[in-house]
Amino acid sequence: MTAKTMRASVLRDVRDIGLEERPVPRPGPREVLVQVTSVGTCGSDTHYYEHGRIGPFVVEQPLVLGHEAGGVVVECGPEATRHAPGQRVAIEPGVPCSVCAQCRAGRYNLCPDMRFYATPPVDGAFCEYVVVHEEFAYAVPEAISDDAAGLLEPLSVGIWASRKGRVAPGSRVLVTGAGPIGLVATQAARAFGATEVVVTDVNPHRLALAEELGATGTIDVRSGSPAESGYEPEVLLECSGVPRAAADGVRALGRAGRAVLVGMGGDELPLPVSHLQNFEIELTGTFRYANTWPTAIALASSGAVDLDRLVTHRFGLAEVEQALTVSARDETAVKAVVRPQE
Amino acid sequence: MTAKTMRASVLRDVRDIGLEERPVPRPGPREVLVQVTSVGTCGSDTHYYEHGRIGPFVVEQPLVLGHEAGGVVVECGPEATRHAPGQRVAIEPGVPCSVCAQCRAGRYNLCPDMRFYATPPVDGAFCEYVVVHEEFAYAVPEAISDDAAGLLEPLSVGIWASRKGRVAPGSRVLVTGAGPIGLVATQAARAFGATEVVVTDVNPHRLALAEELGATGTIDVRSGSPAESGYEPEVLLECSGVPRAAADGVRALGRAGRAVLVGMGGDELPLPVSHLQNFEIELTGTFRYANTWPTAIALASSGAVDLDRLVTHRFGLAEVEQALTVSARDETAVKAVVRPQE
Amino acid sequence: MTAKTMRASVLRDVRDIGLEERPVPRPGPREVLVQVTSVGTCGSDTHYYEHGRIGPFVVEQPLVLGHEAGGVVVECGPEATRHAPGQRVAIEPGVPCSVCAQCRAGRYNLCPDMRFYATPPVDGAFCEYVVVHEEFAYAVPEAISDDAAGLLEPLSVGIWASRKGRVAPGSRVLVTGAGPIGLVATQAARAFGATEVVVTDVNPHRLALAEELGATGTIDVRSGSPAESGYEPEVLLECSGVPRAAADGVRALGRAGRAVLVGMGGDELPLPVSHLQNFEIELTGTFRYANTWPTAIALASSGAVDLDRLVTHRFGLAEVEQALTVSARDETAVKAVVRPQE
Amino acid sequence: MTAKTMRASVLRDVRDIGLEERPVPRPGPREVLVQVTSVGTCGSDTHYYEHGRIGPFVVEQPLVLGHEAGGVVVECGPEATRHAPGQRVAIEPGVPCSVCAQCRAGRYNLCPDMRFYATPPVDGAFCEYVVVHEEFAYAVPEAISDDAAGLLEPLSVGIWASRKGRVAPGSRVLVTGAGPIGLVATQAARAFGATEVVVTDVNPHRLALAEELGATGTIDVRSGSPAESGYEPEVLLECSGVPRAAADGVRALGRAGRAVLVGMGGDELPLPVSHLQNFEIELTGTFRYANTWPTAIALASSGAVDLDRLVTHRFGLAEVEQALTVSARDETAVKAVVRPQE
Repeated sequence: MTAKTMRASVLRDVRDIGLEERPVPRPGPREVLVQVTSVGTCGSDTHYYEHGRIGPFVVEQPLVLGHEAGGVVVECGPEATRHAPGQRVAIEPGVPCSVCAQCRAGRYNLCPDMRFYATPPVDGAFCEYVVVHEEFAYAVPEAISDDAAGLLEPLSVGIWASRKGRVAPGSRVLVTGAGPIGLVATQAARAFGATEVVVTDVNPHRLALAEELGATGTIDVRSGSPAESGYEPEVLLECSGVPRAAADGVRALGRAGRAVLVGMGGDELPLPVSHLQNFEIELTGTFRYANTWPTAIALASSGAVDLDRLVTHRFGLAEVEQALTVSARDETAVKAVVRPQE
Repeated sequence: MTAKTMRASVLRDVRDIGLEERPVPRPGPREVLVQVTSVGTCGSDTHYYEHGRIGPFVVEQPLVLGHEAGGVVVECGPEATRHAPGQRVAIEPGVPCSVCAQCRAGRYNLCPDMRFYATPPVDGAFCEYVVVHEEFAYAVPEAISDDAAGLLEPLSVGIWASRKGRVAPGSRVLVTGAGPIGLVATQAARAFGATEVVVTDVNPHRLALAEELGATGTIDVRSGSPAESGYEPEVLLECSGVPRAAADGVRALGRAGRAVLVGMGGDELPLPVSHLQNFEIELTGTFRYANTWPTAIALASSGAVDLDRLVTHRFGLAEVEQALTVSARDETAVKAVVRPQE
Repeated sequence: MTAKTMRASVLRDVRDIGLEERPVPRPGPREVLVQVTSVGTCGSDTHYYEHGRIGPFVVEQPLVLGHEAGGVVVECGPEATRHAPGQRVAIEPGVPCSVCAQCRAGRYNLCPDMRFYATPPVDGAFCEYVVVHEEFAYAVPEAISDDAAGLLEPLSVGIWASRKGRVAPGSRVLVTGAGPIGLVATQAARAFGATEVVVTDVNPHRLALAEELGATGTIDVRSGSPAESGYEPEVLLECSGVPRAAADGVRALGRAGRAVLVGMGGDELPLPVSHLQNFEIELTGTFRYANTWPTAIALASSGAVDLDRLVTHRFGLAEVEQALTVSARDETAVKAVVRPQE
Repeated sequence: MTAKTMRASVLRDVRDIGLEERPVPRPGPREVLVQVTSVGTCGSDTHYYEHGRIGPFVVEQPLVLGHEAGGVVVECGPEATRHAPGQRVAIEPGVPCSVCAQCRAGRYNLCPDMRFYATPPVDGAFCEYVVVHEEFAYAVPEAISDDAAGLLEPLSVGIWASRKGRVAPGSRVLVTGAGPIGLVATQAARAFGATEVVVTDVNPHRLALAEELGATGTIDVRSGSPAESGYEPEVLLECSGVPRAAADGVRALGRAGRAVLVGMGGDELPLPVSHLQNFEIELTGTFRYANTWPTAIALASSGAVDLDRLVTHRFGLAEVEQALTVSARDETAVKAVVRPQE
């Protein structure tokens, strides 16, 4: 029988996170209660921890962070029939309103009424139990580990980027930035059939990992640049958030190229508009993802992508602060995960 | 029988245009010889006249300007069977290589080996006769006037912008700039089924004309702005070339909006990237057009667009300089055409 | 204050419809209660009346028919905020589950759990009051009449067909069948920019009406055929349900043509597969529509389509049987509407 | 120095092929002369050999068959600059007119003036030397064998089918028919990211090979059927040309599925139209391919597809008849290639 209270890691103020005892949530009619086994940490979690806000989203009351979660169904709401208790699941952390114009057009990621884990005021998954609509919990096969179940979330970001960039068999792709998102974007691009994927970064550890995970070439932008390399990609997946990387990446694109801005940058970005025009470059931003979990599960379970290889650090629920800050201390860190049951 | 020489208006140096006697060109195997009846003047012609270059294209030898041309076929090359002498035609002024990767993908406007009228070193149509590949001369019905035949070229720019922006029945469109391109873009958007088309400019004459040609609203940006208006378009057709109009226009777009940059601006343009990302705006530049003449002819001959209404001034071949500079002298000027036979 | 009971026209058995007194339904949390002002009759209603079933959908208990409905909001559920009482609305008659894979992909018309008016066991709108989810009731402006509000439903079928067929400015379209669906498809195709729309039928009254509503040509297939006409359309909108019309229509299509099968036919249809292959024809069936009401409202209120012109007969709630059978008696009949308040 | 005459295998009449001495062709201005190293045999070659015609294409004068060719450039026409002598190339065997509406729209496979190897009256590649436009000869890297260079042609058919069917990462695909086309379609679908590819045939040797080349499941339709299997594909790639396989395959498709008819069948095909409508299936025929060689080269050189594994028999130029008939004699035969230099 499920406990009545649970431990949750709560962000109480800027740079102040601590464990609290909270009631275990109750599943609504079509929700399931999930015992969380692994939650990846994301740059947005760290940003909330350090700044208390991301743009218009301000943490005004204690907030549970974490939105890259996998776990096991332990209870089903009265009308939830999709899963049975014991089912291992990956969680899609945002549930849209489902009936607005964006939702009905299949762009539910743009729903203005989205409720998304770890985005104020909605609590996330650095805790022992969460509830989620049964259709946003996805059964995962044994081939997908607990950590990988959670990391289907960043993989979804990479899949979405490849879809937006129309990566296809034979595509030449440039991925700028080899952090966790750049690394899933690299793998997604390969799984979409790209035969050349060049990755840029300033961190040689990450560039080496990119090669291990399928990059066909890398550029250390401390000493080189896409332009100098002579490489002319069809698709740019910008995953660094660095304005110059975006501008240089766009400039490298060939005719009819596509530029996908995944990384978050500032409000304004100077873009090489004459190149955009002369080459009819299509540029798009991405905001989360839609309809990606089935694809992510297919790619992760078939071995086309390797998510476990990204995990460099594991922490318990009492160590969330360390998990959120390990990248600043250890340049070999890629993805830290939190395991609430350990 | 066709004369052996003809009059041509030749740009000899910056701000130096004069009539010269030149040999009438001979049509190649699949070319036709066209007696030019009307040629629209374009901002790019004026730019060459005033600066001797546009970006990388430099006028290094005497050049005939003019690329918005209609006329009458007077002779067919030995393998040209599409038209008979006497056929009134509109001319698509750029002939691509037809076999490169861009051409074969249907994006012949991006062909690196395009030969385009009035783009150095290829002569244009401010002259009595031109030759063109028979497949780039299009028969026009009586419903299309001589001037309108030439102005199918700027209409093609407007059609291309609407295609790139995926304007569809019921679309809400913002057109920034009510010059000739903004006015054809407005009409094209309506012909694509847009039910709201709001046009911005600083010139009240042009805004009034926009309304006459189908705009459902106008904004004089000397005293207002799209943002203040509360209008949330799905598609931006940027036709002003003014950086702030582009940025403000993008910022006005709703979720999943499309921004099409038609107007030429500087090399770099600061764009509101966080809006692009949060709303997943797609932004694209346009470069000329591809496969637009059949559509342009259908729309102009059915009355869905009115090209003759754009013509405010007409000049003879000896008056090309006046035609190229009339906009600077007369704020009611929209489109000046040159009629080589008058 | 809303009455507690209402009159409803109930299909009790094959060819047995009668008025019954029923409770006025109560709106759920996000539903609105709509007083029905006009309901179009559809061939599917007549089919249920005559046969008691359509394919797998069998009428096993008394059923209220009618799904082309407009009316006035008279009460809002406790969480419904989109409309206020007094608002005139058009009703989208199918409410999907919103969370299945089809719904989330934007194809909610393919939702296997769709609840659709007048499809057993869901009651329809031949009655005084109906409830509907507030997001499936659309405010209509004064320019749209009560009858037209209901007829946005068949217009949606026509819009969907044009979308599936990618009708665009300048398209050449063949519409086979000039019944109500053929006539809205014709108008939709024109609103999508088609400059040639040829319509076929065996009923000269309907062909004349097609011309009045925008057809640029008609073919009476009692004495002619698309093939003989020499017309080579890019898009076929098959609205007759006649197998030979479908096959002949497909055969008439030019290279890269699109065939959209709107009309319901039997289970198997012999199709000219070598033509499909040699010309790479794309053929698709349509099933209802998705995301069409905003477009339908824009087109009907702008005057781009005329729905009132389709209405040839009006009946009260006690005359539903007559409404469902008038087409068989009167070859000039096009669309009969039922007005429950009269 | 190139010889003046060469040996060519000539189809002189039905079932009458013999070697003849013919002049080595001279390359035109932008053509290259290619010494043929390997040419695959195709069902269409066999069909011409056995029947003297395929539909409207009738062999009326002696014809050289063979259109799946690779070789080495030995001479370049005076304006051909893309390749140098010695370059190993794969040949795209159809050269379109390049300027018609289909060509300019990027659909050059639908060009009505296509000149295609081994399609009367254009000679093919069962000979020592051929000429081809330099842009239709593609440099191949060492990783692609001589045989594989020729087999990029059938791979192109498979790539085109996957494109038309919008096969994407995670797709579930049904391939009906495990002949050479079904086997390249299977491999292409996997390279496009499909994670489930079920293949049907009646030949256990071919089904075993399909599994070896990436099929995740097979159905021997002598004892089973897609419908019985419970498998619900999103995409059907019909490669058998058997009417019942097409109909059964369409019937197996899930909602919004795509059916691609690659195999040639008779003129008419009964299709399950109610399923097409209720599930909004998109069905399309394919005719050759466009813009596939760069993708085919990328996939073959990266190892994503294995073309050499298809080659079961090799013959010299004097043995073309045996090559064309081996399938009828040997049920383990898949692809026979002809090597003109041996």
